[in-house]
Amino acid sequence: MLAVTPVTIQKISQSHEPQEHSDLLAVEEPLEIRLGFGPADDRQQRSVAVTMRTPGHDEELALGFLFTENILSTPSQIISVRHCVTDSEKKGNVLRVELQPDVKIDWQRLERHSYTASSCGICGKTSIEAVQSVCQKPLSGNFAVDSEIIHTLPEKLRAAQRTFAYTGGLHAAALFDETGQLRLVREDIGRHNALDKLIGAAFWQGWLPLSRFGVMVSGRVAFELVQKCWMAGVPLLAAVGAPSSLAVELANEAGMTLLGFVRENRFNQYN
Amino acid sequence: MLAVTPVTIQKISQSHEPQEHSDLLAVEEPLEIRLGFGPADDRQQRSVAVTMRTPGHDEELALGFLFTENILSTPSQIISVRHCVTDSEKKGNVLRVELQPDVKIDWQRLERHSYTASSCGICGKTSIEAVQSVCQKPLSGNFAVDSEIIHTLPEKLRAAQRTFAYTGGLHAAALFDETGQLRLVREDIGRHNALDKLIGAAFWQGWLPLSRFGVMVSGRVAFELVQKCWMAGVPLLAAVGAPSSLAVELANEAGMTLLGFVRENRFNQYN
Repeated sequence: MLAVTPVTIQKISQSHEPQEHSDLLAVEEPLEIRLGFGPADDRQQRSVAVTMRTPGHDEELALGFLFTENILSTPSQIISVRHCVTDSEKKGNVLRVELQPDVKIDWQRLERHSYTASSCGICGKTSIEAVQSVCQKPLSGNFAVDSEIIHTLPEKLRAAQRTFAYTGGLHAAALFDETGQLRLVREDIGRHNALDKLIGAAFWQGWLPLSRFGVMVSGRVAFELVQKCWMAGVPLLAAVGAPSSLAVELANEAGMTLLGFVRENRFNQYN
Repeated sequence: MLAVTPVTIQKISQSHEPQEHSDLLAVEEPLEIRLGFGPADDRQQRSVAVTMRTPGHDEELALGFLFTENILSTPSQIISVRHCVTDSEKKGNVLRVELQPDVKIDWQRLERHSYTASSCGICGKTSIEAVQSVCQKPLSGNFAVDSEIIHTLPEKLRAAQRTFAYTGGLHAAALFDETGQLRLVREDIGRHNALDKLIGAAFWQGWLPLSRFGVMVSGRVAFELVQKCWMAGVPLLAAVGAPSSLAVELANEAGMTLLGFVRENRFNQYN
Protein backbone atom coordinates (compact mmCIF):
# COMPACT_ATOMS: atom_id res chain seq x y z
CA MET A 1 0.00 0.00 0.00
CA LEU A 2 1.32 3.43 -0.88
CA ALA A 3 1.49 6.43 1.43
CA VAL A 4 -0.23 8.68 -1.10
CA THR A 5 -3.17 8.20 -3.42
CA PRO A 6 -4.30 10.27 -6.42
CA VAL A 7 -7.49 12.32 -6.39
CA THR A 8 -9.18 14.76 -8.73
CA ILE A 9 -10.02 18.07 -7.10
CA GLN A 10 -11.54 21.42 -7.98
CA LYS A 11 -9.17 24.31 -7.31
CA ILE A 12 -11.16 27.41 -6.46
CA SER A 13 -9.61 30.84 -6.00
CA GLN A 14 -10.59 34.47 -6.15
CA SER A 15 -8.18 35.20 -8.98
CA HIS A 16 -9.01 32.33 -11.37
CA GLU A 17 -11.93 30.33 -12.72
CA PRO A 18 -12.41 26.97 -10.94
CA GLN A 19 -10.12 24.34 -12.44
CA GLU A 20 -9.96 20.57 -12.25
CA HIS A 21 -6.60 19.28 -11.02
CA SER A 22 -4.95 16.00 -10.16
CA ASP A 23 -3.69 15.98 -6.58
CA LEU A 24 -2.32 13.51 -4.05
CA LEU A 25 -3.77 12.63 -0.65
CA ALA A 26 -2.00 11.13 2.33
CA VAL A 27 -3.38 7.62 2.80
CA GLU A 28 -5.13 6.87 6.09
CA GLU A 29 -6.06 3.29 6.97
CA PRO A 30 -6.64 1.51 10.29
CA LEU A 31 -3.94 -0.76 11.71
CA GLU A 32 -4.81 -3.34 14.31
CA ILE A 33 -1.94 -4.43 16.54
CA ARG A 34 -2.17 -7.92 18.04
CA LEU A 35 0.02 -9.73 20.51
CA GLY A 36 0.40 -13.46 19.90
CA PHE A 37 1.96 -16.43 21.65
CA GLY A 38 2.89 -19.49 19.66
CA PRO A 39 3.96 -19.18 16.05
CA ALA A 40 1.17 -20.64 13.97
CA ASP A 41 -2.03 -20.53 15.94
CA ASP A 42 -3.83 -17.27 15.32
CA ARG A 43 -6.29 -18.01 18.09
CA GLN A 44 -3.55 -17.45 20.66
CA GLN A 45 -3.55 -13.71 20.20
CA ARG A 46 -5.20 -10.58 21.50
CA SER A 47 -5.85 -7.21 19.96
CA VAL A 48 -4.24 -4.36 21.91
CA ALA A 49 -4.90 -1.33 19.74
CA VAL A 50 -6.40 -0.01 16.54
CA THR A 51 -4.85 3.17 15.22
CA MET A 52 -5.52 5.18 12.08
CA ARG A 53 -2.18 5.44 10.32
CA THR A 54 -0.47 5.97 6.98
CA PRO A 55 0.68 2.57 5.67
CA GLY A 56 4.42 1.98 5.66
CA HIS A 57 6.84 1.01 8.43
CA ASP A 58 3.94 -0.77 10.15
CA GLU A 59 6.25 -3.08 12.08
CA GLU A 60 8.13 -0.08 13.48
CA LEU A 61 4.87 1.63 14.36
CA ALA A 62 3.72 -1.41 16.31
CA LEU A 63 7.04 -1.81 18.11
CA GLY A 64 7.27 1.90 18.92
CA PHE A 65 3.74 1.85 20.29
CA LEU A 66 4.35 -1.29 22.38
CA PHE A 67 7.62 0.09 23.74
CA THR A 68 6.46 3.63 24.52
CA GLU A 69 3.28 2.30 26.15
CA ASN A 70 5.52 0.19 28.39
CA ILE A 71 4.07 -3.10 27.12
CA LEU A 72 7.40 -4.39 25.76
CA SER A 73 10.90 -3.41 26.88
CA THR A 74 13.47 -5.16 24.65
CA PRO A 75 13.63 -6.62 21.12
CA SER A 76 14.57 -9.98 22.65
CA GLN A 77 10.98 -10.40 23.84
CA ILE A 78 9.84 -10.62 20.23
CA ILE A 79 9.95 -13.66 17.95
CA SER A 80 8.46 -12.04 14.87
CA VAL A 81 6.36 -9.16 13.59
CA ARG A 82 4.29 -9.86 10.52
CA HIS A 83 1.13 -8.81 8.75
CA CYS A 84 -1.77 -11.14 9.35
CA VAL A 85 -2.54 -13.07 6.18
CA THR A 86 -5.36 -15.42 7.15
CA ASP A 87 -8.10 -13.27 5.69
CA SER A 88 -8.51 -12.26 2.08
CA GLU A 89 -9.84 -8.88 3.21
CA LYS A 90 -6.73 -8.21 5.25
CA LYS A 91 -5.29 -5.42 3.08
CA GLY A 92 -2.20 -5.39 5.26
CA ASN A 93 -4.02 -3.71 8.12
CA VAL A 94 -3.54 -6.31 10.85
CA LEU A 95 -0.13 -6.83 12.38
CA ARG A 96 0.73 -9.72 14.67
CA VAL A 97 3.62 -9.37 17.11
CA GLU A 98 4.64 -12.83 18.25
CA LEU A 99 6.20 -12.87 21.70
CA GLN A 100 8.52 -15.28 23.50
CA PRO A 101 6.45 -17.65 25.65
CA ASP A 102 7.83 -16.25 28.92
CA VAL A 103 6.86 -12.61 28.28
CA LYS A 104 4.34 -11.38 30.83
CA ILE A 105 1.63 -8.99 29.68
CA ASP A 106 -0.57 -7.03 32.08
CA TRP A 107 -3.82 -7.49 30.16
CA GLN A 108 -5.87 -5.70 32.77
CA ARG A 109 -3.83 -2.57 32.33
CA LEU A 110 -4.30 -2.74 28.56
CA GLU A 111 -8.06 -2.90 28.97
CA ARG A 112 -8.18 0.31 30.93
CA HIS A 113 -8.81 3.48 28.98
CA SER A 114 -5.52 4.98 30.02
CA TYR A 115 -2.42 4.26 32.02
CA THR A 116 -3.39 6.99 34.45
CA ALA A 117 -4.92 6.11 37.78
CA SER A 118 -8.70 5.92 37.74
CA SER A 119 -9.06 7.66 41.10
CA CYS A 120 -11.07 10.84 41.27
CA GLY A 121 -7.76 12.66 41.61
CA ILE A 122 -6.77 12.49 37.96
CA CYS A 123 -4.74 15.53 37.03
CA GLY A 124 -1.62 16.59 35.23
CA LYS A 125 0.43 15.72 38.30
CA THR A 126 -0.80 12.12 38.41
CA SER A 127 -0.21 11.84 34.67
CA ILE A 128 3.36 12.97 35.15
CA GLU A 129 3.83 10.57 38.07
CA ALA A 130 2.52 7.69 35.97
CA VAL A 131 5.18 8.40 33.35
CA GLN A 132 7.90 8.89 35.98
CA SER A 133 7.13 5.49 37.47
CA VAL A 134 8.08 3.72 34.24
CA CYS A 135 10.79 6.01 32.85
CA GLN A 136 14.43 6.19 33.74
CA LYS A 137 15.67 8.76 36.20
CA PRO A 138 15.92 12.23 34.66
CA LEU A 139 17.89 12.16 31.46
CA SER A 140 21.51 13.15 31.69
CA GLY A 141 22.21 16.59 30.34
CA ASN A 142 25.43 15.94 28.44
CA PHE A 143 23.90 16.18 24.97
CA ALA A 144 24.24 19.68 23.57
CA VAL A 145 23.61 21.03 20.10
CA ASP A 146 24.67 24.46 18.89
CA SER A 147 21.79 26.81 18.07
CA GLU A 148 23.20 27.23 14.53
CA ILE A 149 22.58 23.51 14.01
CA ILE A 150 19.02 23.77 15.36
CA HIS A 151 18.32 26.53 12.81
CA THR A 152 19.17 24.09 9.98
CA LEU A 153 16.75 21.37 11.09
CA PRO A 154 13.42 22.62 9.62
CA GLU A 155 14.86 22.81 6.11
CA LYS A 156 16.45 19.37 6.43
CA LEU A 157 13.16 17.94 7.67
CA ARG A 158 11.28 19.47 4.74
CA ALA A 159 13.81 18.12 2.27
CA ALA A 160 13.48 14.65 3.78
CA GLN A 161 9.69 14.74 3.78
CA ARG A 162 9.02 13.74 0.24
CA THR A 163 5.40 12.81 0.83
CA PHE A 164 4.60 16.00 2.67
CA ALA A 165 5.78 18.03 -0.28
CA TYR A 166 3.09 16.35 -2.36
CA THR A 167 0.17 16.23 0.01
CA GLY A 168 0.75 18.75 2.79
CA GLY A 169 -0.92 16.15 4.95
CA LEU A 170 1.74 14.22 6.83
CA HIS A 171 3.53 14.75 10.11
CA ALA A 172 7.19 13.88 10.36
CA ALA A 173 9.56 12.89 13.14
CA ALA A 174 13.33 12.83 12.67
CA LEU A 175 16.25 11.58 14.71
CA PHE A 176 19.32 13.82 14.50
CA ASP A 177 22.80 13.65 15.98
CA GLU A 178 24.90 16.39 17.56
CA THR A 179 26.23 17.48 14.16
CA GLY A 180 22.66 18.06 12.98
CA GLN A 181 22.65 15.14 10.56
CA LEU A 182 19.24 13.46 10.21
CA ARG A 183 19.74 9.76 10.90
CA LEU A 184 16.16 8.57 10.46
CA VAL A 185 12.90 10.20 9.31
CA ARG A 186 9.42 8.73 9.57
CA GLU A 187 6.09 10.14 8.40
CA ASP A 188 2.46 9.54 9.26
CA ILE A 189 -0.87 11.28 9.18
CA GLY A 190 -0.81 11.09 12.99
CA ARG A 191 1.93 12.84 14.91
CA HIS A 192 2.03 10.10 17.54
CA ASN A 193 2.38 7.45 14.87
CA ALA A 194 5.28 9.26 13.17
CA LEU A 195 7.14 9.30 16.49
CA ASP A 196 6.20 5.68 17.25
CA LYS A 197 7.61 4.64 13.86
CA LEU A 198 10.84 6.51 14.59
CA ILE A 199 11.25 5.09 18.10
CA GLY A 200 10.17 1.63 16.95
CA ALA A 201 12.90 1.64 14.30
CA ALA A 202 15.51 2.68 16.87
CA PHE A 203 14.17 0.08 19.35
CA TRP A 204 14.48 -2.69 16.78
CA GLN A 205 18.03 -1.57 15.87
CA GLY A 206 19.04 -1.76 19.53
CA TRP A 207 19.81 1.97 19.66
CA LEU A 208 17.90 2.69 22.88
CA PRO A 209 18.34 4.68 25.04
CA LEU A 210 18.81 7.49 22.50
CA SER A 211 21.03 9.53 24.79
CA ARG A 212 23.19 10.92 21.94
CA PHE A 213 20.30 12.03 19.73
CA GLY A 214 17.66 14.70 19.45
CA VAL A 215 14.20 14.38 17.91
CA MET A 216 12.63 16.99 15.62
CA VAL A 217 8.88 16.89 14.93
CA SER A 218 6.87 18.81 12.35
CA GLY A 219 3.90 19.79 14.49
CA ARG A 220 2.96 20.77 18.01
CA VAL A 221 4.10 19.02 21.16
CA ALA A 222 1.59 17.64 23.62
CA PHE A 223 2.17 15.51 26.71
CA GLU A 224 2.27 12.19 24.92
CA LEU A 225 5.12 13.12 22.56
CA VAL A 226 7.33 14.08 25.51
CA GLN A 227 6.33 10.85 27.25
CA LYS A 228 7.37 8.77 24.24
CA CYS A 229 10.70 10.60 23.92
CA TRP A 230 11.40 10.15 27.62
CA MET A 231 10.67 6.40 27.35
CA ALA A 232 13.25 6.27 24.54
CA GLY A 233 15.82 8.30 26.52
CA VAL A 234 15.84 11.29 24.14
CA PRO A 235 17.47 14.33 25.81
CA LEU A 236 16.28 17.00 23.33
CA LEU A 237 12.93 17.45 21.59
CA ALA A 238 12.52 20.21 18.99
CA ALA A 239 9.25 21.10 17.27
CA VAL A 240 8.09 23.36 14.48
CA GLY A 241 4.97 24.12 16.53
CA ALA A 242 4.07 25.08 20.09
CA PRO A 243 4.27 22.89 23.18
CA SER A 244 1.46 22.46 25.71
CA SER A 245 1.68 23.29 29.40
CA LEU A 246 1.87 19.63 30.39
CA ALA A 247 4.50 18.93 27.74
CA VAL A 248 6.72 21.60 29.31
CA GLU A 249 6.08 20.26 32.83
CA LEU A 250 6.91 16.71 31.82
CA ALA A 251 10.05 17.80 29.95
CA ASN A 252 11.17 19.62 33.09
CA GLU A 253 10.68 16.46 35.18
CA ALA A 254 12.56 14.41 32.60
CA GLY A 255 15.49 16.80 32.31
CA MET A 256 14.69 16.99 28.59
CA THR A 257 15.47 20.15 26.60
CA LEU A 258 12.28 21.28 24.86
CA LEU A 259 12.39 23.67 21.88
CA GLY A 260 9.31 25.07 20.12
CA PHE A 261 8.57 27.27 17.10
CA VAL A 262 11.79 26.04 15.48
CA ARG A 263 11.49 27.86 12.15
CA GLU A 264 12.83 30.79 10.20
CA ASN A 265 16.15 30.87 12.06
CA ARG A 266 14.64 31.25 15.51
CA PHE A 267 13.25 29.06 18.28
CA ASN A 268 12.01 29.18 21.87
CA GLN A 269 13.59 27.19 24.67
CA TYR A 270 11.16 26.21 27.42
CA ASN A 271 13.50 24.97 30.16
CA MET B 1 -8.79 26.49 35.31
CA LEU B 2 -7.62 28.77 32.52
CA ALA B 3 -6.92 27.74 28.94
CA VAL B 4 -3.49 29.40 28.98
CA THR B 5 -0.70 29.53 31.51
CA PRO B 6 2.35 31.82 31.69
CA VAL B 7 5.87 30.56 31.17
CA THR B 8 9.33 32.11 30.92
CA ILE B 9 11.20 31.17 27.77
CA GLN B 10 14.50 31.88 26.06
CA LYS B 11 14.03 33.34 22.59
CA ILE B 12 16.93 32.34 20.39
CA SER B 13 17.45 33.67 16.88
CA GLN B 14 20.24 34.17 14.39
CA SER B 15 19.78 37.91 14.34
CA HIS B 16 19.70 38.67 18.10
CA GLU B 17 21.30 37.67 21.37
CA PRO B 18 19.21 35.14 23.36
CA GLN B 19 16.55 36.93 25.38
CA GLU B 20 14.32 35.94 28.23
CA HIS B 21 10.62 36.46 27.50
CA SER B 22 7.28 35.86 29.14
CA ASP B 23 5.06 33.69 27.00
CA LEU B 24 1.78 31.78 27.26
CA LEU B 25 1.21 28.07 26.83
CA ALA B 26 -2.01 26.27 25.95
CA VAL B 27 -3.04 24.28 29.02
CA GLU B 28 -3.26 20.51 28.63
CA GLU B 29 -4.83 18.40 31.40
CA PRO B 30 -6.51 14.98 31.41
CA LEU B 31 -10.30 14.77 31.59
CA GLU B 32 -11.97 11.57 32.70
CA ILE B 33 -15.55 11.09 31.48
CA ARG B 34 -17.79 8.91 33.63
CA LEU B 35 -21.32 7.69 33.10
CA GLY B 36 -23.45 7.46 36.24
CA PHE B 37 -26.86 6.18 37.22
CA GLY B 38 -28.56 7.55 40.31
CA PRO B 39 -27.89 11.10 41.46
CA ALA B 40 -25.86 10.85 44.62
CA ASP B 41 -24.08 7.53 44.70
CA ASP B 42 -20.71 7.87 43.03
CA ARG B 43 -20.21 4.10 43.13
CA GLN B 44 -22.88 3.68 40.47
CA GLN B 45 -20.68 4.99 37.70
CA ARG B 46 -18.16 3.81 35.14
CA SER B 47 -15.30 5.52 33.42
CA VAL B 48 -15.65 5.56 29.63
CA ALA B 49 -12.71 7.68 28.48
CA VAL B 50 -9.73 9.74 29.50
CA THR B 51 -8.70 12.44 27.06
CA MET B 52 -6.00 15.09 27.19
CA ARG B 53 -7.79 18.37 26.69
CA THR B 54 -7.61 22.10 27.28
CA PRO B 55 -9.88 22.94 30.24
CA GLY B 56 -13.05 24.85 29.42
CA HIS B 57 -16.39 23.71 27.99
CA ASP B 58 -15.75 20.31 29.59
CA GLU B 59 -19.46 19.48 29.70
CA GLU B 60 -19.73 20.13 25.96
CA LEU B 61 -16.63 18.06 25.31
CA ALA B 62 -18.11 15.11 27.20
CA LEU B 63 -21.48 15.40 25.46
CA GLY B 64 -19.92 15.79 22.03
CA PHE B 65 -17.74 12.76 22.65
CA LEU B 66 -20.65 10.65 23.93
CA PHE B 67 -22.86 11.69 21.00
CA THR B 68 -20.31 11.30 18.20
CA GLU B 69 -19.21 7.93 19.59
CA ASN B 70 -22.85 6.84 19.40
CA ILE B 71 -23.10 6.26 23.15
CA LEU B 72 -25.86 8.84 23.69
CA SER B 73 -28.38 10.10 21.13
CA THR B 74 -30.51 12.85 22.72
CA PRO B 75 -30.18 15.41 25.53
CA SER B 76 -33.28 13.88 27.15
CA GLN B 77 -31.20 10.85 28.18
CA ILE B 78 -29.19 13.07 30.51
CA ILE B 79 -30.14 14.19 34.01
CA SER B 80 -27.02 16.24 34.73
CA VAL B 81 -23.40 16.83 33.79
CA ARG B 82 -21.12 17.98 36.57
CA HIS B 83 -17.52 17.92 37.70
CA CYS B 84 -16.79 15.29 40.29
CA VAL B 85 -16.19 16.92 43.65
CA THR B 86 -15.68 14.02 46.05
CA ASP B 87 -11.90 14.21 46.00
CA SER B 88 -9.78 17.14 47.08
CA GLU B 89 -7.30 16.31 44.30
CA LYS B 90 -10.00 16.56 41.68
CA LYS B 91 -8.80 19.77 39.99
CA GLY B 92 -11.91 19.74 37.81
CA ASN B 93 -10.59 16.87 35.72
CA VAL B 94 -13.33 14.31 36.31
CA LEU B 95 -16.75 14.82 34.80
CA ARG B 96 -19.79 12.74 35.68
CA VAL B 97 -22.66 12.47 33.20
CA GLU B 98 -25.74 11.26 35.05
CA LEU B 99 -28.18 9.34 32.87
CA GLN B 100 -31.89 8.58 33.10
CA PRO B 101 -32.39 5.15 34.69
CA ASP B 102 -33.80 3.63 31.48
CA VAL B 103 -30.84 4.52 29.23
CA LYS B 104 -29.14 1.39 27.87
CA ILE B 105 -25.36 1.42 27.49
CA ASP B 106 -23.47 -1.22 25.51
CA TRP B 107 -20.59 -1.57 27.96
CA GLN B 108 -18.96 -4.35 25.98
CA ARG B 109 -18.63 -2.10 22.97
CA LEU B 110 -17.06 0.61 25.12
CA GLU B 111 -14.43 -1.80 26.36
CA ARG B 112 -13.25 -2.64 22.88
CA HIS B 113 -10.35 -0.65 21.53
CA SER B 114 -12.37 0.66 18.65
CA TYR B 115 -15.82 0.61 17.13
CA THR B 116 -14.41 -1.23 14.12
CA ALA B 117 -14.91 -4.96 13.74
CA SER B 118 -12.08 -7.02 15.20
CA SER B 119 -12.06 -9.46 12.30
CA CYS B 120 -8.85 -9.89 10.38
CA GLY B 121 -10.47 -7.93 7.57
CA ILE B 122 -10.08 -4.51 9.16
CA CYS B 123 -9.64 -1.89 6.47
CA GLY B 124 -10.83 1.52 5.41
CA LYS B 125 -13.95 -0.06 3.91
CA THR B 126 -15.00 -1.70 7.18
CA SER B 127 -14.29 1.55 9.02
CA ILE B 128 -16.58 3.40 6.62
CA GLU B 129 -19.26 0.73 6.96
CA ALA B 130 -19.11 0.97 10.74
CA VAL B 131 -19.83 4.70 10.51
CA GLN B 132 -22.55 4.20 7.89
CA SER B 133 -24.34 1.76 10.16
CA VAL B 134 -24.90 4.42 12.82
CA CYS B 135 -25.21 7.58 10.71
CA GLN B 136 -28.19 8.91 8.85
CA LYS B 137 -28.60 8.25 5.16
CA PRO B 138 -26.35 10.47 3.03
CA LEU B 139 -26.76 14.10 4.00
CA SER B 140 -29.08 16.13 1.83
CA GLY B 141 -27.25 18.41 -0.56
CA ASN B 142 -29.37 21.53 -0.22
CA PHE B 143 -26.86 23.53 1.83
CA ALA B 144 -24.74 25.72 -0.44
CA VAL B 145 -22.30 28.48 0.41
CA ASP B 146 -20.84 30.90 -2.12
CA SER B 147 -17.07 30.56 -2.59
CA GLU B 148 -16.68 34.25 -1.70
CA ILE B 149 -18.04 33.41 1.74
CA ILE B 150 -15.67 30.45 2.13
CA HIS B 151 -12.73 32.79 1.41
CA THR B 152 -13.72 34.92 4.44
CA LEU B 153 -13.73 32.03 6.91
CA PRO B 154 -10.01 31.71 7.80
CA GLU B 155 -9.79 35.35 8.85
CA LYS B 156 -12.98 35.10 10.89
CA LEU B 157 -11.68 31.97 12.59
CA ARG B 158 -8.40 33.66 13.45
CA ALA B 159 -10.20 36.69 14.84
CA ALA B 160 -12.35 34.44 17.01
CA GLN B 161 -9.42 32.39 18.27
CA ARG B 162 -8.22 34.60 21.05
CA THR B 163 -6.18 31.92 22.77
CA PHE B 164 -4.46 30.85 19.59
CA ALA B 165 -3.24 34.36 19.03
CA TYR B 166 -1.39 34.12 22.32
CA THR B 167 -0.06 30.60 22.24
CA GLY B 168 -0.13 29.32 18.66
CA GLY B 169 -1.00 26.03 20.26
CA LEU B 170 -4.73 25.49 19.98
CA HIS B 171 -6.94 23.95 17.34
CA ALA B 172 -10.31 25.54 16.63
CA ALA B 173 -13.63 24.36 15.23
CA ALA B 174 -16.35 26.81 14.19
CA LEU B 175 -19.97 26.44 13.17
CA PHE B 176 -21.02 28.86 10.41
CA ASP B 177 -24.28 29.51 8.61
CA GLU B 178 -24.94 30.08 4.90
CA THR B 179 -24.16 33.79 5.22
CA GLY B 180 -20.71 32.93 6.59
CA GLN B 181 -21.45 34.13 10.10
CA LEU B 182 -19.64 32.14 12.80
CA ARG B 183 -22.29 30.95 15.25
CA LEU B 184 -20.07 29.06 17.68
CA VAL B 185 -16.30 28.60 18.09
CA ARG B 186 -14.54 26.11 20.35
CA GLU B 187 -10.83 25.58 20.97
CA ASP B 188 -8.69 22.76 22.28
CA ILE B 189 -5.18 21.44 22.11
CA GLY B 190 -6.67 18.37 20.39
CA ARG B 191 -8.49 18.80 17.09
CA HIS B 192 -10.97 16.04 17.95
CA ASN B 193 -11.74 17.72 21.25
CA ALA B 194 -12.37 21.11 19.63
CA LEU B 195 -14.92 19.49 17.33
CA ASP B 196 -16.45 17.47 20.18
CA LYS B 197 -16.90 20.70 22.16
CA LEU B 198 -18.59 22.34 19.18
CA ILE B 199 -20.91 19.41 18.47
CA GLY B 200 -21.58 18.89 22.17
CA ALA B 201 -22.72 22.50 22.50
CA ALA B 202 -25.05 22.12 19.51
CA PHE B 203 -26.31 18.78 20.85
CA TRP B 204 -27.15 20.32 24.22
CA GLN B 205 -28.94 23.24 22.52
CA GLY B 206 -31.09 20.81 20.53
CA TRP B 207 -29.68 22.05 17.20
CA LEU B 208 -28.94 18.62 15.73
CA PRO B 209 -28.93 17.63 12.93
CA LEU B 210 -26.88 20.61 11.76
CA SER B 211 -28.27 20.48 8.22
CA ARG B 212 -28.17 24.27 7.74
CA PHE B 213 -24.57 24.76 8.94
CA GLY B 214 -21.01 24.20 7.85
CA VAL B 215 -18.03 23.47 10.08
CA MET B 216 -14.60 25.08 9.66
CA VAL B 217 -11.54 23.57 11.39
CA SER B 218 -8.06 25.02 11.82
CA GLY B 219 -6.01 21.91 11.02
CA ARG B 220 -6.00 18.84 8.86
CA VAL B 221 -8.94 16.49 8.34
CA ALA B 222 -8.64 12.81 9.13
CA PHE B 223 -11.33 10.13 9.12
CA GLU B 224 -12.58 10.81 12.62
CA LEU B 225 -13.43 14.48 12.02
CA VAL B 226 -15.60 13.56 9.03
CA GLN B 227 -17.21 10.83 11.13
CA LYS B 228 -18.09 13.29 13.89
CA CYS B 229 -19.52 15.82 11.42
CA TRP B 230 -21.59 13.11 9.74
CA MET B 231 -22.98 12.01 13.12
CA ALA B 232 -24.04 15.63 13.68
CA GLY B 233 -25.58 15.96 10.19
CA VAL B 234 -23.14 18.62 8.97
CA PRO B 235 -23.30 18.91 5.15
CA LEU B 236 -20.08 20.92 4.63
CA LEU B 237 -16.66 20.59 6.29
CA ALA B 238 -13.93 23.13 5.48
CA ALA B 239 -10.35 22.94 6.76
CA VAL B 240 -7.25 25.10 6.71
CA GLY B 241 -5.17 21.94 6.20
CA ALA B 242 -5.22 18.83 4.01
CA PRO B 243 -7.65 15.92 4.19
CA SER B 244 -6.63 12.27 4.29
CA SER B 245 -7.64 9.65 1.75
CA LEU B 246 -10.12 8.04 4.13
CA ALA B 247 -11.60 11.44 5.06
CA VAL B 248 -12.37 12.05 1.38
CA GLU B 249 -13.84 8.55 0.96
CA LEU B 250 -16.06 8.93 4.01
CA ALA B 251 -17.21 12.40 2.95
CA ASN B 252 -18.18 10.95 -0.44
CA GLU B 253 -20.24 8.23 1.26
CA ALA B 254 -21.88 10.82 3.49
CA GLY B 255 -22.71 13.24 0.69
CA MET B 256 -20.70 15.83 2.63
CA THR B 257 -18.88 18.63 0.80
CA LEU B 258 -15.22 18.57 1.86
CA LEU B 259 -12.95 21.60 1.35
CA GLY B 260 -9.23 21.67 2.16
CA PHE B 261 -6.40 24.23 2.14
CA VAL B 262 -8.96 26.98 2.79
CA ARG B 263 -6.57 29.94 3.06
CA GLU B 264 -5.31 32.97 1.18
CA ASN B 265 -8.45 33.30 -0.94
CA ARG B 266 -8.30 29.80 -2.39
CA PHE B 267 -9.40 26.28 -1.51
CA ASN B 268 -9.66 22.76 -2.94
CA GLN B 269 -12.93 20.89 -3.23
CA TYR B 270 -12.58 17.11 -2.94
CA ASN B 271 -15.97 15.89 -4.11
